[in-house]
Amino acid sequence: MRRNFRKQDLPVDRVRRYLEPGPIVLVSSSWNGQNNIMTMGWHTVMEFSPSLVGCVISAGNHSFELVRRSGECVINLPTTALTDAVVGIGNSSGAAIDKFDQFGLTADGAEKVKAPLIRECYAHFECRLADDSLVEKYNFFVWEVVRAQAAVSPKYPQTIHYTGDGVFMVSGKMISRRRQFLPEML
Amino acid sequence: MRRNFRKQDLPVDRVRRYLEPGPIVLVSSSWNGQNNIMTMGWHTVMEFSPSLVGCVISAGNHSFELVRRSGECVINLPTTALTDAVVGIGNSSGAAIDKFDQFGLTADGAEKVKAPLIRECYAHFECRLADDSLVEKYNFFVWEVVRAQAAVSPKYPQTIHYTGDGVFMVSGKMISRRRQFLPEML
Repeated sequence: MRRNFRKQDLPVDRVRRYLEPGPIVLVSSSWNGQNNIMTMGWHTVMEFSPSLVGCVISAGNHSFELVRRSGECVINLPTTALTDAVVGIGNSSGAAIDKFDQFGLTADGAEKVKAPLIRECYAHFECRLADDSLVEKYNFFVWEVVRAQAAVSPKYPQTIHYTGDGVFMVSGKMISRRRQFLPEML
Repeated sequence: MRRNFRKQDLPVDRVRRYLEPGPIVLVSSSWNGQNNIMTMGWHTVMEFSPSLVGCVISAGNHSFELVRRSGECVINLPTTALTDAVVGIGNSSGAAIDKFDQFGLTADGAEKVKAPLIRECYAHFECRLADDSLVEKYNFFVWEVVRAQAAVSPKYPQTIHYTGDGVFMVSGKMISRRRQFLPEML
């Protein structure tokens, strides 16, 4: 069941909590009056502060030119309620359809970028292009997260993680080993 | 319970199956007669062929000089059986201890690199440094996987995914949406 999460701002150095576990994300973008969404699984946190995230957006994707020309995107975190939309978005092209319309998603205004937020997602990370030096060679973009929002509850979202071959892993139970950590490692 | 997995070689363009879901991995390295292991959560697949993986290995880690000087490492995939070792490795320094000894892990010989494999892990990806152009600025290494091995069973390992604050997500159920994929997307 889809729901509209109530969200609050999150310090941008805290996005690792949601991205480091490796979920599939939805990247929204906007350029020249056109919005688009792509499904993305190749991303990594790169730094806490500034809050950097690196990701591969292939030149073969319709979103490539939109994010490259605008220098912006929003990384949205879907939960299992959006699994079919995630698959549909990954198996269609924004050159042919409006993905917000097609998959029943709502484009909300972001605060720091022109790219839209996807309302039905659990979290949104508004990004500005920080480094394009590996874009030509690897289609690898380094983004700075300039605003982060996440749902107030549940504390940990049920995310989906892609393994290839049309198969996803769904996030399972949470376990704490906090007492085994050095204070400076927390 | 720890086990010794029976492993087989895997085509190197198939490592996304294990890395794209975003598990914590153990990076083993060797330089000048010294072995080390570090816990790493900041990594991403970058290309199928050549098989490229990007990751952040902070200059503050003892492993940084070992991987930089040798230009090699092994990315090992631990399962929940190794959770306490993963935490211990992430909360200690190879400058002070031998992590193989300390955490009861076995260093096996790799085929293509001098860095050791960690026998108790589910999979091993032997890596050679492919691009160091972002090492200075972001401590971001681009590796080429030159040999991959994975356990024959279970088909999907129970992996651990870090969220910060000493809390891990354990991989949950697998779901297939294969019939909703375009043939060229599989």
